[in-house]
Amino acid sequence: MAKTITISLDVMGGDHGAEVVLPGAEIALVRHPDIRYILFGNEKVVLPLLDKYPKLKQASTFQHCEVAIAMDSKPSQALRQGRWKSSMWRSIEAVKTGEASVAVSAGNTGALMAMSKFCLRTMANIERPAIAAIWPTARGESIVLDVGATIGADAQQLIDFAILGGAMARALFGIKKPTVGLLNIGVEEVKGLEEVRTAGRLLRETQLRSLKYEGFVEGDDIGRGAVDVVVTEGFAGNIALKTAEGTAKQIGGYLRAAMNRTLMSKIGYLFAKSAFDRLREKMDPRKVNGGVFLGLNGIVIKSHGGTDAEGYASAIDLAYDMVRNELTQKIAQDLVHYHRSSFADEAEKSEGDL
Amino acid sequence: MAKTITISLDVMGGDHGAEVVLPGAEIALVRHPDIRYILFGNEKVVLPLLDKYPKLKQASTFQHCEVAIAMDSKPSQALRQGRWKSSMWRSIEAVKTGEASVAVSAGNTGALMAMSKFCLRTMANIERPAIAAIWPTARGESIVLDVGATIGADAQQLIDFAILGGAMARALFGIKKPTVGLLNIGVEEVKGLEEVRTAGRLLRETQLRSLKYEGFVEGDDIGRGAVDVVVTEGFAGNIALKTAEGTAKQIGGYLRAAMNRTLMSKIGYLFAKSAFDRLREKMDPRKVNGGVFLGLNGIVIKSHGGTDAEGYASAIDLAYDMVRNELTQKIAQDLVHYHRSSFADEAEKSEGDL
Repeated sequence: MAKTITISLDVMGGDHGAEVVLPGAEIALVRHPDIRYILFGNEKVVLPLLDKYPKLKQASTFQHCEVAIAMDSKPSQALRQGRWKSSMWRSIEAVKTGEASVAVSAGNTGALMAMSKFCLRTMANIERPAIAAIWPTARGESIVLDVGATIGADAQQLIDFAILGGAMARALFGIKKPTVGLLNIGVEEVKGLEEVRTAGRLLRETQLRSLKYEGFVEGDDIGRGAVDVVVTEGFAGNIALKTAEGTAKQIGGYLRAAMNRTLMSKIGYLFAKSAFDRLREKMDPRKVNGGVFLGLNGIVIKSHGGTDAEGYASAIDLAYDMVRNELTQKIAQDLVHYHRSSFADEAEKSEGDL
Repeated sequence: MAKTITISLDVMGGDHGAEVVLPGAEIALVRHPDIRYILFGNEKVVLPLLDKYPKLKQASTFQHCEVAIAMDSKPSQALRQGRWKSSMWRSIEAVKTGEASVAVSAGNTGALMAMSKFCLRTMANIERPAIAAIWPTARGESIVLDVGATIGADAQQLIDFAILGGAMARALFGIKKPTVGLLNIGVEEVKGLEEVRTAGRLLRETQLRSLKYEGFVEGDDIGRGAVDVVVTEGFAGNIALKTAEGTAKQIGGYLRAAMNRTLMSKIGYLFAKSAFDRLREKMDPRKVNGGVFLGLNGIVIKSHGGTDAEGYASAIDLAYDMVRNELTQKIAQDLVHYHRSSFADEAEKSEGDL
């Protein structure tokens, strides 16, 4: 039997805390019986509830934490109040000490990122972490990063994101050489941000072994699934992600209104119910719940704060897959390869210069 | 009877040129019999076709132009080849000379913006033009700008965009005091771009008579219709717009596939056909065709390059509305008011300093 995978959970994180985290963890456990959990939270809240989930209880160890980070606390505030002792901090710390292979939290994104950076630190040769989102497309799924870890990115950071996202695509989709595009805008004269153009040139020249650079992509290429990995800085990435979510909700609303308008349309809805169910499932945001923090010495998964147990289970599934498919090792290999080949390039160039 | 409105058309612009522009112009003319057109294009292409549209022919004057700007020409190239003599240039120039009140082109966006800037120049006190898009929302329609005129914007430019967009909302929606939001991202620590924060502070302090500043909005607030005017710089704005278009297409594809899958769903589709037609109409991109160039000494409307006659007619409708509702005058008033009140503020402050 394969080795078990230990996942640490910030049970207090999210809009609903333990009430969603525990049943979510049980759902994921049924799907992956080789998961072991370390649960971090307040004993008064967690333990009574945990008794309702005997399977989960058996697969878990529990650690009491005095502090829970509020959903609206600022990152600096969260760090001040919650370092060393909050359930959020300690779930991340378990990854650092090696007790867990990955941490999952539905807590405040800013606080979670600040603590993850502080606790795990960025990997050697990586200046900044990124949050990678899994984006449902017409072809399947793509990875988009950064969707909001930091604003702005220089060319080197964009290349780092390409390597990180490429490794994640190999781990998640099982593709040997994922395609990568840089998000840009279509107006020619300004095509585009200088950093994006420089990153594009460097990616073309370097010819990384681990990914296939496809050039610039525009906003509408994301949903088409034009590339496996879309690379951008966090401001534009976050706006793209939220805009797509908003558009999906808006169209869902139109559709509901249209189907409810006349008797005929209501009858039509009944006939086509299974089709609508399929569509709803396809558009279900709980299916692809989970932002992956990349570029740190350890993996942290951010679940949507408002999700339900099913959605939380998806975030755990993602955490499980990332460990099972050796995301961290893949990233490390790709980084070594990239830096070797760029040093080799530079050595060659220097020789040429002599 | 109200004064006629003269609109200049770049008949050669767009993927299909005269074949779409002329029938589109006729459709809009039927809706607004008080339109007069000045048609700019190559006589060999336009005149034979124009004979097929006697009503249009009667309402138009024609001007022969040797040069047509290619859809893939770079702005600098277009300016070199097409200044003074292309159908694109001359349709814009007609606005400058006052022969026309507004120009419409389905040509290359970059070239059209470059020529519009060069020919019309930016308004006094406005540093940079913006492209404003009309965005269908759950509540109706909003205006989003800039969607790609230039990358980046400092705080003052964002305030200019707020004033320009606010005036357009008053002209288009007939709202006295449109609500305005600044597009930003939700991660707290980085909330957000410094320019956006500064612009927010200034908008709050200035309390413009012509608009109601509502604070930051996120990507998903656009589709919700949270504010009448969403202000952002051109990179993020363009990516948001294209991403929303891509998402709408993607969901449309899902829906078609779902409805075609089983006999039951096909029957359901037939019953609900009128509902689907309504939905299709609601999502029809031709309905809201037209980016408005704001901040120049004259209005230019950019139609989608690939649209059909119906879509082109929408762009003309928009041009018509902008003139009929005195967009230019509204902008000028708002700018005067804003600069008076900020000068007054500064004068007051200086007095206070003494």
